[in-house]
Amino acid sequence: MRQQSPLDVIKPEARKLSAYTLEHVQADVKLDQNESPYELPEDLKRAAVERVLARPWARYPEFIPTSITKALARFTGWPVEGILVGNGSNELIQSTLTVTLGPSRTVAIPQPTFTLYKLMSSILQANIVTVPLRAKDLSYDVEALAAAAAGADITVMCLPNNPTGSVVDAAGLKKIVESARGIVIVDEAYHEFHGESAFGLLADHPNLIVLRTFSKAMSMAALRFGYLMASPDLTREIYKAKLPYNVNVFTQAVAEMVIERRPMMDEPIRRIVAERERMMRELKARPGVECFESRANFILFRTGRPAKEVFDAIRMRGVLTRDVSGYPMLDRCLRVSVGLPNENDRFLEALDAALSVVAASR
Amino acid sequence: MRQQSPLDVIKPEARKLSAYTLEHVQADVKLDQNESPYELPEDLKRAAVERVLARPWARYPEFIPTSITKALARFTGWPVEGILVGNGSNELIQSTLTVTLGPSRTVAIPQPTFTLYKLMSSILQANIVTVPLRAKDLSYDVEALAAAAAGADITVMCLPNNPTGSVVDAAGLKKIVESARGIVIVDEAYHEFHGESAFGLLADHPNLIVLRTFSKAMSMAALRFGYLMASPDLTREIYKAKLPYNVNVFTQAVAEMVIERRPMMDEPIRRIVAERERMMRELKARPGVECFESRANFILFRTGRPAKEVFDAIRMRGVLTRDVSGYPMLDRCLRVSVGLPNENDRFLEALDAALSVVAASR
Repeated sequence: MRQQSPLDVIKPEARKLSAYTLEHVQADVKLDQNESPYELPEDLKRAAVERVLARPWARYPEFIPTSITKALARFTGWPVEGILVGNGSNELIQSTLTVTLGPSRTVAIPQPTFTLYKLMSSILQANIVTVPLRAKDLSYDVEALAAAAAGADITVMCLPNNPTGSVVDAAGLKKIVESARGIVIVDEAYHEFHGESAFGLLADHPNLIVLRTFSKAMSMAALRFGYLMASPDLTREIYKAKLPYNVNVFTQAVAEMVIERRPMMDEPIRRIVAERERMMRELKARPGVECFESRANFILFRTGRPAKEVFDAIRMRGVLTRDVSGYPMLDRCLRVSVGLPNENDRFLEALDAALSVVAASR
Repeated sequence: MRQQSPLDVIKPEARKLSAYTLEHVQADVKLDQNESPYELPEDLKRAAVERVLARPWARYPEFIPTSITKALARFTGWPVEGILVGNGSNELIQSTLTVTLGPSRTVAIPQPTFTLYKLMSSILQANIVTVPLRAKDLSYDVEALAAAAAGADITVMCLPNNPTGSVVDAAGLKKIVESARGIVIVDEAYHEFHGESAFGLLADHPNLIVLRTFSKAMSMAALRFGYLMASPDLTREIYKAKLPYNVNVFTQAVAEMVIERRPMMDEPIRRIVAERERMMRELKARPGVECFESRANFILFRTGRPAKEVFDAIRMRGVLTRDVSGYPMLDRCLRVSVGLPNENDRFLEALDAALSVVAASR
């Protein structure tokens, strides 16, 4: 019996991929993952923990997580039959792509954007059409996206986009959704910082899927929770690729409490948005720094020096940012999350020091 | 622009599938999901909760969950580079199949077995070769599996098998792994109740993948945790399809504490095994009941009446079992989990009453 090498069983599209990785770096000020700097209130945490301690841990979560799904339906106004919950929205991206993409399918993905879309699409052996952002300002090219969507089974848009912070206006989004031959996924991981949503298009556009996460504005990155909204018909199909019992009882309990007390998140969001605007002004005022317009809780900027040099010089001053210069079109770019005001000041000081040191060493 | 119906974007293999579902039924005695009837100690739960409360919830889990992976490496003796952790072993099944299966790939799956393998393989458009268990006693057909494995990219074996409880001996397993052209996945969700493992073959068989879960013997079904062991080379490839941050900080904390105190699980496992043996003797002693040999924490049995009738009659007496008669070869079969001694007594009484009522109503 001739055995293959077990590695020959791995699909060639997966073999040639680099894994999605992130080096773990310690820093005083952590502005690398677009997390919220505001923790949930201690009383909410304690109440969630007690709720979980009161139920058996040896028993599976409900097969259909009714309670959390109903809470989301009340909060969003979208029917329960059109809602799926996931272990982070990442899992719902995976389920959606898995039931739709294969070797004969086409996916249109803006470039640069959140890497998971291209990674999963590659492993699923789909034909990937990349649609570059406009080079001058990294804004979405609505015409190009609408044209690509017309020929694609799946079109992906992160609104705001990661790592650029770009958005499209309501008319542009409508045009893309209505031009699409297939399904449009609008990933709204950062929508709270933008204040706009594709939600209003859902009822009249059965080809639209809206994804959201609790890992950013909802301060729950450690616990992993996301949800999907789409027509009930489409939701039923995506459900087939979703793993059973995917959201554990602890995450369900916390997410439900956050939804119940959702207005408490308005103030932290408002502060983050105000800080983003301040940081953009500060960055734009700096000679040698190009700052891109962001509607998310992070800012993309470019300096005149290699990103790695600037990243290291900032990190040596205790502030962790993200070197995103490996993305297409993002040569010499870094991404910085919006933190607490004093953290943002630390970053700006570190950046100034980094740029002067880097300049001096030229 | 001609739009497709969004449902036309769903792959035909997914469209025609029924979703994996489970009706939610209340009952005094819950013997339908192969959960452990023994909860983790209260002090462990409290300690885990405090550990989680002490870290920020707004921050992502570590990118590589080093602490839990190292704990598993110490516990198993397998290198960290060959271990992946998942949100239940289900997620690792999905990752493994996603990097290996597509339209031109073949997967050999015993029949009947855990439904997720066939479901995921179908959605991935693989060619599925089913290998029936032996009709007379639902034991594994080693020759047939070895022959199928010789032509398959992926061969799946649940040891013990769900929902039958079947196993193969060490020689049979070795033969299958060595006959395989590709990768063999041994799913050991229930191995603690069997007392044997494919682990010993891992070092010399780079085409072997061993999956384990904390949802059964480890009493953690509510929290979702599983792990995979394979050669570091193979692990690196499967890692590419694993979602980042897939195990949340709460589950990591509890799983780590369970591993640290692993010997505490020996006694509950011993009791469950003793009860399984007692229940099998009881069932075998009943006329009109055919009881299959099980090495798991559940028992498959067949009566002379339609499974739905027997299931309902048992349920009316407060005991929930699983009607598995929809699986191939399992006409008139039910599966019952092994619970606490008094729960098992309740089940046996309910079964007797059910069978006499059903018989009387003929």
